[in-house]
Parts: sequence; structure tokens; C-alpha cells
Amino acid sequence: MTRVIKIGGAIVDNQELLNEVLDRCASLNEPFVLVHGGGKIATQLAQQLGVEQTVIDGRRVTDADTLRVVTMAYAGLVNKNVVAQLQSRGVQCLGMTGADADLVRAHKRIHPTIDYGFVGDIDSVNTEVLTMLLQKRISVVVAPLTHDGHGSLLNTNADTMAARIAMAMNAVPVRLHYVFEHPGVMRNIDDPDSLITEIRGDEVDALISAGIIDKGMLPKIANAVEAAQAGVSVLIQGVTALGTDTGTMILC
Amino acid sequence: MTRVIKIGGAIVDNQELLNEVLDRCASLNEPFVLVHGGGKIATQLAQQLGVEQTVIDGRRVTDADTLRVVTMAYAGLVNKNVVAQLQSRGVQCLGMTGADADLVRAHKRIHPTIDYGFVGDIDSVNTEVLTMLLQKRISVVVAPLTHDGHGSLLNTNADTMAARIAMAMNAVPVRLHYVFEHPGVMRNIDDPDSLITEIRGDEVDALISAGIIDKGMLPKIANAVEAAQAGVSVLIQGVTALGTDTGTMILC
Repeated sequence: MTRVIKIGGAIVDNQELLNEVLDRCASLNEPFVLVHGGGKIATQLAQQLGVEQTVIDGRRVTDADTLRVVTMAYAGLVNKNVVAQLQSRGVQCLGMTGADADLVRAHKRIHPTIDYGFVGDIDSVNTEVLTMLLQKRISVVVAPLTHDGHGSLLNTNADTMAARIAMAMNAVPVRLHYVFEHPGVMRNIDDPDSLITEIRGDEVDALISAGIIDKGMLPKIANAVEAAQAGVSVLIQGVTALGTDTGTMILC
Repeated sequence: MTRVIKIGGAIVDNQELLNEVLDRCASLNEPFVLVHGGGKIATQLAQQLGVEQTVIDGRRVTDADTLRVVTMAYAGLVNKNVVAQLQSRGVQCLGMTGADADLVRAHKRIHPTIDYGFVGDIDSVNTEVLTMLLQKRISVVVAPLTHDGHGSLLNTNADTMAARIAMAMNAVPVRLHYVFEHPGVMRNIDDPDSLITEIRGDEVDALISAGIIDKGMLPKIANAVEAAQAGVSVLIQGVTALGTDTGTMILC
């Protein structure tokens, strides 16, 4: 089974959590794909550089200066440090963006009224090189940037990238792990015993209406259901559960 | 013949020169390794972020903040934009640092009196993945960072990285190109007809004494002679000569 593991920003921002994830990745028997978000590093860097951040309806607008910032933070700082830290654990791996090996092509988001700038919506995933690397037992660390085929990088949601990569690899059995700071989807976020162990796609609307799925979990669930419907095994789980079946399984 | 092409900082800083280089790379018949320097981007970024730069005897000291800066600038901004721009020219390629696929391992520079910080002197080059990628007709773009195998990235001279990678690939015929803003080594930098077409290793000292080889050319020549002695064909040439035999050939 090939694992596509997405780690959230809260893990990237916390070296202790990140170490825990990388230790668990290193103990997996099979090479893996690790997709990371950016965490707060890009926001902090933008502030330091005086690049103003515009957020519309909870989504960040990526102007040219912000694209530079996320390219430096995601593809440079985060990606290469994760690669170096995995290498120190004996994991042969390399880092990629969607531009590398033409992994993920996208186009600038088209919206009737809002210009999101250099935000990419995914057109195609090319897993030829990725599959070859995994077959050679080389793991791949993916930063959430895509390219448009015309020389421009684009800022793309990491949850979506992970889902689309997992879906494109689905000739082999694939499991998509959304790993974050909670044990999974919780009925009550303050009650660690309230983990929902399975969610079917047709239960999602009711969970949203009940306020159990909200905020940052909404796009994650949408991506998870889409991947599950495409035949990917999807698990939303906590850091310490990575590599096990514990968490919220998403069923189509 | 496999080409390892090093482009200097003045090319990275100038989009017109960079386009010329990338056009010429795209017209090569064989996949290539393109090693880039950082140009002024890292220095400018350090200034913007208020990271003070210390230079001792012409060499930059890389403290922890400067390592972050060069990682963002070299592995993020420069490397990924070059990859995206090559992809737009139909070149299947991916970007790497020395940490990726364990390409180049190094150790922190040991010096009796000066602490250069996170500057890496190369220990070993692992071309296993690089060779596999080239065989699959995938070109590789290399940023001048290495890793120590213990989780830390290190800042490493791009000329040296290019030479050591070329030397490590020498089971196949390799040509190392140092491509920069002049046509080659010139007897008189102001006279475009004064190109020296061949330099033997044993002529270098006399050229240094005569002041013909100086400044930035000194480490380049040292790397070139080392590579030539190891059996690599080495050519120092201008941007418009890339892909041809025009320039200064270094003979051992």
C-alpha cells in the first residue's frame, strides 16, 4: 500500500510534533509521499518583508510578492528542512513542488468577481516520475505549489494537492492520511473520547448542519470524500496514530 | 555526453541572460544537470529581513538566520522558478539540493580561527538517483545547498558542487560548463578578441602571477583544474556559447 500523508500547518509550526511525524514516517516499511502545508512561516515572513496579506472569505489572495514569499517558505525553508531531517533518519527521499517532474499542473483560479492572483486550481497530475521514485524506494516530500506550464508557479491548497495526487496514483492501493493535531473528527472537540471512527459521504451534510464539521475541517472533508469516491482509502488522524488504522475513516 | 552546467549569479540576477541560458538548455539533445548560484537575491533578502551579513576574507559567514535566508532564496525562489521556466520550454526536469536524494553530503567547515557557521565542505556525492533521472531523460536543477546527514542543511559553493557532481558522474563522459557573463578567460577583460581558448593545469600559476586570473575566477579555475584532472572535460564559456565548444577549455 502506498501512503500519501498530508501534515497540517500546526505540525509544521511545532518542531516536537514534526519530529513525532518524521519518526513515524521513518518507521514505515514502504516509501511514502509526504505533503506539507506551510504553517505560519509564510505569514510571518510576509509580515517581516512588509508584504500585505489580503484574505477574502477566508482565502488568501496571492499577489506576485506573496507568491515569492510562499515559494521561499514552502519550497525552500519547510521542504528542504523536512528532507534533511528525513535523511538524518535514514529515509532516502527528495522534495518536489508541482512544477518538479511536472507533478501537478494548474491554472489561475477563475472567479466571477474576485481576483485571487497566483492561486492555482489543479488541472492534471503526472505521477510518472513519482511512481518511478517510489518503486526505487525513494520517498517524496511535496510542497503545496503547482505550475501553469507557462513558467509561473501557483499557490495551491495542500489538502487538495494530497487528495489529487492520491487519486492519480490509484492504480495501486493508496491510503490518504490527513494528519493533524486532533485524533480525527470529534463529536465534541473537548472530549477525547468522542472520536467518530467512520464517516460516509452521505453523512457529511448532517454533520455540517450539526456544527460537528466546520471551519478548517470543511475543505478537508470535501477533499477526503472526493478521494474516497475515487477509490482511495482515506483516514483523518492524529500525529501519534500515523501508521495505524486509528482515526476517522472516510467511506464513499 | 552528460553536461553539468553551472550558471553564475550574474545570470540568475538577469532574466534576459537567464532566458538565453534556459533556451539553450532546452535545445540540447540530452538531459542535463544545471547548477545555479544564488546571485544577489540572498543578500537582498537578508537586508530586507535585517539579517546582518559578515564576510571574512571574501567568504560569507553563514549563521542560522543566514542559512534560513539562503535556503529560501536558493532552494525556493531561484530553484523552483528555474524548474517552472524549463517546464514551460518542454524540458522535463526537477529541482534538488544536496539533501534531496542524498545527492551531496558535507560537514561544517573546520578552520583553526574562523567559525564560518553553516558552510559545508563536501564529503561525498551520491549520483545514484541523479543518474537514474538522467537515464529517464529528466534533467535536474541543483541549488547550492548540501546536508550533513544529521538533519542540517549547509551552504556550499556552487562552482565546487558542480565540479564534484561532474567528477562523481565520470563513469560516463561528462562535460562541465562554467557559464558566465564573459566569453571565457580573457587575457584582457576589455578586449573581446583576447579569449584564451585552452589552459593547462600547469599554466595556471603563471596566469595568476600575471593577474589574468584573479578574483572570482580563482576558485572557478581551481575547481575546473581539479575536475579536469579527474577526467572531466571542462569548458568556461559565455552564455551565447552554451552547447558549443567555444570558450576556455581547461586541460589537465
